[in-house]
Amino acid sequence: MVLLSGGIDSTTCLAIARARGFDTYALTFNYQQRHRIEVEAAHRVARSLGASDHMILDLPLGQIGGSALTSDLEVPKNATLAEIRTRIPTTYVPARNTIFLSFALAWAEVLETGNIFVGVNALDYSGYPDCRPEYIKAFLKMANLATKKTILGKMRFKIHTPLIKLTKAQIIQNGINLGVDYSLTHSCYDPDQAGAACGCCDSCLLRRKGFSEAAVPDPTVYRKSEVKRAASKK
Amino acid sequence: MVLLSGGIDSTTCLAIARARGFDTYALTFNYQQRHRIEVEAAHRVARSLGASDHMILDLPLGQIGGSALTSDLEVPKNATLAEIRTRIPTTYVPARNTIFLSFALAWAEVLETGNIFVGVNALDYSGYPDCRPEYIKAFLKMANLATKKTILGKMRFKIHTPLIKLTKAQIIQNGINLGVDYSLTHSCYDPDQAGAACGCCDSCLLRRKGFSEAAVPDPTVYRKSEVKRAASKK
Repeated sequence: MVLLSGGIDSTTCLAIARARGFDTYALTFNYQQRHRIEVEAAHRVARSLGASDHMILDLPLGQIGGSALTSDLEVPKNATLAEIRTRIPTTYVPARNTIFLSFALAWAEVLETGNIFVGVNALDYSGYPDCRPEYIKAFLKMANLATKKTILGKMRFKIHTPLIKLTKAQIIQNGINLGVDYSLTHSCYDPDQAGAACGCCDSCLLRRKGFSEAAVPDPTVYRKSEVKRAASKK
Repeated sequence: MVLLSGGIDSTTCLAIARARGFDTYALTFNYQQRHRIEVEAAHRVARSLGASDHMILDLPLGQIGGSALTSDLEVPKNATLAEIRTRIPTTYVPARNTIFLSFALAWAEVLETGNIFVGVNALDYSGYPDCRPEYIKAFLKMANLATKKTILGKMRFKIHTPLIKLTKAQIIQNGINLGVDYSLTHSCYDPDQAGAACGCCDSCLLRRKGFSEAAVPDPTVYRKSEVKRAASKK
């Protein structure tokens, strides 16, 4: 079971699970996110990396709201790295990873696998509380008390977080070594209709920094005007 | 925040939250359950008990399957009380309460309330692992690490489980004392098109036992033939 958004982290996580010899079942959510174009990226990635199955679930997170990703709130642009590292931005989606991991538990129990891979990263990330090691540990403890098969001793969950202590550049280097084609992935929170990335939301900024530090050409199509404006502001 | 299925337990739980002076926000899931008629019951109950808001969310649990409630598997009928108390039946839905509570967390964070009421009951229940006190405790610990507002110290979650140690009869007595109209509620896992209850699934059996032991007339419409057949089998 691999949670797959179609971004750099979850794509690399899927490649790592494959490299470790797992049959992989990718799970993606169409949660009424502003950048739902990422679901198409997830589809391309799952096929390219040979996932045995790919399930896409529709979730009504727009009904709950509370986030710039699921409502009309503006997506923050051109933040500094210090800002990205210290604040929890409006793109935080209430309880998102808890919701996603809960569905992962459900499907994993049906598939009878205890191995759940999730590409959370607590270094080059947007300060989301549900990406931190202590959160993952608490979720795991709950998970093993939550399901029929764990209670009956037929399986135990393990949550694999191979990226949690890596920089974005290290993640990309890992992926390149495993043959990942990052041109298939999507990161931008605020893409245009054609899917071109803004280049200056937190997710684009971390992506660009990652490729730059890894000295790997960034295959992303950015909307040039906005990126230039962002650069000239600094 | 009150999780409301429209059955006896969650209805009583909502009445208790109201009696404790809370403004109540009821949350119900249309999860492709066989007995989705319970969602209508939840709507009636929320209105009758004066919930300030009632959100109904569609969840694709049928896509995940693994349960008699979300697939074509047969619903067990005419179990003995000993069976009900010792086995986890095929009506178990993988990770259901974890999924439901995750959405409760999300909405509670948006509403800025830490108080979540859930009508789980570990006595007259169907052996579901995600109804037990140790599970609820582990979920709560995870929840307080999961969200922006708890991490920033702006709120803390508390999961209220006022029914967890009560028998079904005690739950009904409590509800009657609070003026609950149980004719609005629905319990049966396998109702007919008109909503009449089978009378012999686990949920009906626990409901009937509850009304009988509480010495309260059971307002439920049962399909007479099936109940008779069940009774004559014993």
